[in-house]
Amino acid sequence: MSLSVVGTVAFDGIESPFGKRDKIIGGSALYIALSAIYYTKVNLISVVGHDFPEKDLLYLKNRGIDISGVQIKMDEKTFYWCCRYHEDMNHRDTLLTEINCLGNFIPEVPESYQSSQYLLLGNLAPKTQTSVINQYKVRPKFIALDTMNYWISHFWDDLLEVLSLIDCLIINDSEARQISNKTSLIAAAKEIHRLGPKVIIIKKGEHGALVFFNDEKFYAPAIPLEVVFDPTGAGDCFAGGFMGYLAQQDKSDFASIKNAIIHGSSVASFGIEKFGIERLLDLNYEDILKRTQEFKDLVHF
Amino acid sequence: MSLSVVGTVAFDGIESPFGKRDKIIGGSALYIALSAIYYTKVNLISVVGHDFPEKDLLYLKNRGIDISGVQIKMDEKTFYWCCRYHEDMNHRDTLLTEINCLGNFIPEVPESYQSSQYLLLGNLAPKTQTSVINQYKVRPKFIALDTMNYWISHFWDDLLEVLSLIDCLIINDSEARQISNKTSLIAAAKEIHRLGPKVIIIKKGEHGALVFFNDEKFYAPAIPLEVVFDPTGAGDCFAGGFMGYLAQQDKSDFASIKNAIIHGSSVASFGIEKFGIERLLDLNYEDILKRTQEFKDLVHF
Repeated sequence: MSLSVVGTVAFDGIESPFGKRDKIIGGSALYIALSAIYYTKVNLISVVGHDFPEKDLLYLKNRGIDISGVQIKMDEKTFYWCCRYHEDMNHRDTLLTEINCLGNFIPEVPESYQSSQYLLLGNLAPKTQTSVINQYKVRPKFIALDTMNYWISHFWDDLLEVLSLIDCLIINDSEARQISNKTSLIAAAKEIHRLGPKVIIIKKGEHGALVFFNDEKFYAPAIPLEVVFDPTGAGDCFAGGFMGYLAQQDKSDFASIKNAIIHGSSVASFGIEKFGIERLLDLNYEDILKRTQEFKDLVHF
Repeated sequence: MSLSVVGTVAFDGIESPFGKRDKIIGGSALYIALSAIYYTKVNLISVVGHDFPEKDLLYLKNRGIDISGVQIKMDEKTFYWCCRYHEDMNHRDTLLTEINCLGNFIPEVPESYQSSQYLLLGNLAPKTQTSVINQYKVRPKFIALDTMNYWISHFWDDLLEVLSLIDCLIINDSEARQISNKTSLIAAAKEIHRLGPKVIIIKKGEHGALVFFNDEKFYAPAIPLEVVFDPTGAGDCFAGGFMGYLAQQDKSDFASIKNAIIHGSSVASFGIEKFGIERLLDLNYEDILKRTQEFKDLVHF
């Protein structure tokens, strides 16, 4: 079963204690697509400017990613974002955000994507996310959504609307607390369940992820790593591996959700081993399977 | 197999968003003993002042805790410590510390404890911890130690000495980073292995605990709780359940260490449900076993 992904394709500038890169390709949808492609066919919905290299679009196409939903704005530049990581890599400062072509982005779902049963709405304005769902003639089987503090603070009503339309919310712990106004993540999940999603995934960075599936819960650790090279896109790799696995299995019961979380965590653990998307390009499915076994060994007793 | 425990017995004053208690009995050794007693016979080594209620000592005795190693200083007062928890319960301020009888505490291992094969050295001056080990005519089979930032900063050489004598170090993540001068917990564990302990348990509070056993690792989550009533002593309950289980099983291989960690986490998860030691008094072993099953359900996939 294929997966459709909506989100940003961008130029990133990244400074970390391990080095510096500028204008490397990135963006949430790119990380998601390059993670999910190990599992299933991916349909990309995004926007780039005239300055985005054609060879990179071609590269995505050659990897089996359908880019017919990627708009090219010939009179605008690509979304550009720069950050600098602190010594401990758990904190970063955003140095620059040039919205550029993302400002007027109205995603369009190509006819060929309509049969796609799994939909992942990357971090965008809630209204934009809703507009994508509404373009489907038949609602996809399983819709997951990522959001962030900015939309929670400033677009609450829009967010409420889209939350009522989805199956799965993927957020971090501080966002879960912000949405629910609860400190306890258990209480937060109960509150968010009421807003719509039956599956709530709360990412806790280096501490792993907590999943609430109706009344059940599951905890997936992060693999402890000696070196975190570049955490950019880790959450998107996680979401990509997670949704890629569900689409591959064409299931969304609790057992499949658990396995999907482990797959998402595995892909994310690779993603941060090199700069930007580099490590996502030279993975193979065997590597990922081996790492899911490491997760099993880490927690089973 | 019995467990010997060295540490503080104290009066605690605790303020949390859920209420306030003053001069309730506490201290690391008390939490440890009341946790470990569900698993095995406990031999307590500690000190109290003239103001410590006889009925409480009698209560410990009636629960099967050997108190022949508890010194009563008739001319001094009991160690007294007060704290206030912040709204999120992850942070607290120490309001008052009266060392009192703890100031000149020289632990003495009673003859009747000599056959005890499991020894847990609660957070005390490293020299004091070493002196306890040295009083054993035959080294116990398995020695675990807790310490804190104060000893790491100011008594480094003493700490190095005691670390070379033990099997297992139980610390939190910031202490692991301080001891090793490494940010990555993997790197920290490698460094600490070199100092002596073959088992390193790094507690991460609400994020669980990470165990390094020579080259192997294991991750135990914390059970997500809706209400944390009073986190005081959680680390000691963890250590008590952990060492109690090992002494009960009389084993310290990796499989037993994993199970012990889950037992320690279970007891700790109960301990924080009420004020002070309250919840530790009305537990039963069935409750603990049921909770270890919840841990299994939480992480197995």
